Amino acid sequence: MEFTAKMLADLLHGTVDGDENIKVSSFSKIEKGTPGSLTFLSNMKYVQYIYTTKASIVLVNSDFKPEKPIEATLLRVPNAYEALAQLMQMYNAAIASRPQGIEQPCHIAEGVEIHDDAYVGAFAYIAKGVTVGKNFLCYPQVYIGENVTIGDNVTLYPGVKIYHGCVLGNNVTLHAGCVVGSDGFGFAPKADGTFDKIPQIGNVVIQDDVEIGANTTIDRSTMGSTVIEKGVKLDNLIQVAHNCVVGSNTVIAAQVGLAGSTILGKNCFVGGQAGFAGHMTVPDNCTFAAKTGVTHKITEPGTYVGSYVMPKTKFFKAHVLFGRLPEIYKDLEDLKKLVAEMKQNENNK
Amino acid sequence: MEFTAKMLADLLHGTVDGDENIKVSSFSKIEKGTPGSLTFLSNMKYVQYIYTTKASIVLVNSDFKPEKPIEATLLRVPNAYEALAQLMQMYNAAIASRPQGIEQPCHIAEGVEIHDDAYVGAFAYIAKGVTVGKNFLCYPQVYIGENVTIGDNVTLYPGVKIYHGCVLGNNVTLHAGCVVGSDGFGFAPKADGTFDKIPQIGNVVIQDDVEIGANTTIDRSTMGSTVIEKGVKLDNLIQVAHNCVVGSNTVIAAQVGLAGSTILGKNCFVGGQAGFAGHMTVPDNCTFAAKTGVTHKITEPGTYVGSYVMPKTKFFKAHVLFGRLPEIYKDLEDLKKLVAEMKQNENNK
Amino acid sequence: MEFTAKMLADLLHGTVDGDENIKVSSFSKIEKGTPGSLTFLSNMKYVQYIYTTKASIVLVNSDFKPEKPIEATLLRVPNAYEALAQLMQMYNAAIASRPQGIEQPCHIAEGVEIHDDAYVGAFAYIAKGVTVGKNFLCYPQVYIGENVTIGDNVTLYPGVKIYHGCVLGNNVTLHAGCVVGSDGFGFAPKADGTFDKIPQIGNVVIQDDVEIGANTTIDRSTMGSTVIEKGVKLDNLIQVAHNCVVGSNTVIAAQVGLAGSTILGKNCFVGGQAGFAGHMTVPDNCTFAAKTGVTHKITEPGTYVGSYVMPKTKFFKAHVLFGRLPEIYKDLEDLKKLVAEMKQNENNK
Repeated sequence: MEFTAKMLADLLHGTVDGDENIKVSSFSKIEKGTPGSLTFLSNMKYVQYIYTTKASIVLVNSDFKPEKPIEATLLRVPNAYEALAQLMQMYNAAIASRPQGIEQPCHIAEGVEIHDDAYVGAFAYIAKGVTVGKNFLCYPQVYIGENVTIGDNVTLYPGVKIYHGCVLGNNVTLHAGCVVGSDGFGFAPKADGTFDKIPQIGNVVIQDDVEIGANTTIDRSTMGSTVIEKGVKLDNLIQVAHNCVVGSNTVIAAQVGLAGSTILGKNCFVGGQAGFAGHMTVPDNCTFAAKTGVTHKITEPGTYVGSYVMPKTKFFKAHVLFGRLPEIYKDLEDLKKLVAEMKQNENNK
Repeated sequence: MEFTAKMLADLLHGTVDGDENIKVSSFSKIEKGTPGSLTFLSNMKYVQYIYTTKASIVLVNSDFKPEKPIEATLLRVPNAYEALAQLMQMYNAAIASRPQGIEQPCHIAEGVEIHDDAYVGAFAYIAKGVTVGKNFLCYPQVYIGENVTIGDNVTLYPGVKIYHGCVLGNNVTLHAGCVVGSDGFGFAPKADGTFDKIPQIGNVVIQDDVEIGANTTIDRSTMGSTVIEKGVKLDNLIQVAHNCVVGSNTVIAAQVGLAGSTILGKNCFVGGQAGFAGHMTVPDNCTFAAKTGVTHKITEPGTYVGSYVMPKTKFFKAHVLFGRLPEIYKDLEDLKKLVAEMKQNENNK
Repeated sequence: MEFTAKMLADLLHGTVDGDENIKVSSFSKIEKGTPGSLTFLSNMKYVQYIYTTKASIVLVNSDFKPEKPIEATLLRVPNAYEALAQLMQMYNAAIASRPQGIEQPCHIAEGVEIHDDAYVGAFAYIAKGVTVGKNFLCYPQVYIGENVTIGDNVTLYPGVKIYHGCVLGNNVTLHAGCVVGSDGFGFAPKADGTFDKIPQIGNVVIQDDVEIGANTTIDRSTMGSTVIEKGVKLDNLIQVAHNCVVGSNTVIAAQVGLAGSTILGKNCFVGGQAGFAGHMTVPDNCTFAAKTGVTHKITEPGTYVGSYVMPKTKFFKAHVLFGRLPEIYKDLEDLKKLVAEMKQNENNK
């Protein structure tokens, strides 16, 4: 498949700066661009490479103003990253070979109905009472426990484990090794220092359009449901504890942890390795920097930072001075000496 | 199954405030209580909901004093959370369908004896030399390496992996994707910058009554054993490195990491995402806040906080002032100016 | 197998202090040494135990100077840890039973060639187009996607998942539950708050002599490759995001996270739970303390610390004063009072 700049501009409602007839057949990174490939510039950290890239076409935001001549043809679109996403989806759909059919041996319990368009890989296990929607992709070694409900267009990559009774909506993708519905971490301390396990009789509900990364774990609720709302994107190795709710379209980076019963609002962004204490609530439209520790309830939308969370501006004002503490300390010591001398002088008068 | 408040009070050695004959048949969260359900109040953050809950019965600690009238019937017990645990265990035992039998295909090596009461799911792999106790639940896709020893009443959820030679006691539960006995991270640096692998010839010993969460990893010892003592509870995505010992009844929240050869005492509590450097020792009865970094040996029981660990009180006194650094800095600058003026005045005299 | 101190000294080019004819047949930890075993002293934290160990032989660095008499025979070598590694490798090679053959049922797609010396465990899945080198150890429940290329002497422990198109060099070891080639976390935000998925059409390339720990995840590149260079050692539960490059012989401890497009140099050491923001670059020969947050580009080799990364010396100078903030604050307040009094006195004159 080859496309000219003109064809792509028509497709993406963009305009061409340069050779309308130049052709591309692949993608490349801007710093490693090759002739015949299309690249993009979205993050301005990489702007230097646009002047030297060997790629034939560069997707740019329509307001991009070059400071030097550019050899590549520019394809201007309202949002370069979104346009790239569209092109790559088309490319992917064209090249990917979608698996289909039931591979043996797999375990599909009696009574479970699988549509004709499904793929169930070898060594996958589907327990009794499971219901599955259309266009189901179930890779090898997946485990689906009893009475799990799965919507349309769901993809479960190899080794996904879903415990009994959980619910997945439509257009849900779970990556390899992701665990959904393991027991919440609930133990009642006894007088002798040992613990009674609190059975976790709830489940996990994952709504439509959710994607969850590799080896992420989402625990079932003690009672009721742990809920991942519509459109949420979770990266790899995240922990969502029992009874949590992650609001719709919230995006969470890798290795974040949510302790029990925490409720995140909608349209939040959470940086990697951040952590939320239990029973926290967070309103819509909050951003948390990587490694933030959310140790108290957040009441206002905003950007938050720090291992004992603070509003961003407050944190960085303090943090700059943290780095300068040795100098501040010296100033204080000098001042103490100076004042002591002055006091001495005063006393001597 | 329906129970009256009276029946439950008899069962739990509690007392009833309200309608002794009111019936419940399910559980609910206090903020989402429904008629016919039992809920509980243990964490006082939720006390507001007791006055509005629609649940029929609320389990409370016997010393609970309402500030307003409560519509629900109160069931007073010495420890509401422990009583809840008991009820839910009974409920769970009554409703759960315990799987049984050997599903095919699975791999059970010649000579391995499996009791009649066992469940071995399809695609599970049990290598030669493995011994297994009574009441064994081995879900699909579990892997058990050579010469592993497993006690009575052990549950291995789907996809658990146990390397050769490890030992599990009685009443052990491992959740999906948990890895036990992978090689410790030991490499001897060589002069040319590359590394020689140090073979890890020890194992992992998990004592009785231990529960370990999903995708947690516990490395085998270089020599001797990595030990998880009796009654320990580990949450999801925890790393326990080679040669560590976790003392009995210690509870560790998700995403905590223990570097090599660290020894945690008994009855400790470790908050999520905390980390312990290698070769640390921690006495019994310590509590570590979430995200704490234990970078030196702890010698006294207590509560510890901070990415370079400090006693809690010391940390928070300092941290409050961290947030006030801009104001402290301004005070210091103002003072410097004032003193400079005074010095000037003194000199002018 | 028994060895005398003399035999081991010849083997390791070392010298014997003590009984040349004493025999050992096993390894032990120095603090738990047993007669007939060999132990070692490398980390001087353990030096106290050399005077009391019951082990028969202790490997020590050739420059070790005892402060008291030692009962055990000393075997002096240039590098005790490296010598231990050699001995343990020999021991391990002698005792380990290397599995061989193809266990059924497993899935090996038509056309895939497996050498006669390979082991493919039951329930392993090898998709079409996969190529595999010599001496392949593929444990049960491994998944290898389409067109994956695997070199010689590769070991995949149970439950490893490798997505389509990834490349593994020679002498690569992946531990249980490790995921290679899952989709990078790329979503283009849309005006309505939802996201378009950016297809991840690149792959992961793992070069020779790499070992990767249990449940670690390495995402495929958006385009091009995520690269783990020759000799890298990754511990458990690490996240390497799309488009990252980890330089050769770099060693990364457990639970570290690298966000997208970050490039680590060669011969770096990264402590546990450290995190790197996206698009960072790090030169060769850097060391990062555990829990460090790398939030800006590093330009000089060195040792770095802090959740907003600083050079080590700068960080610790500041951190010591952080702990003393209450006392600094009191000094400042006292000084303010004193100056105010002096000012008052001045005014009164």
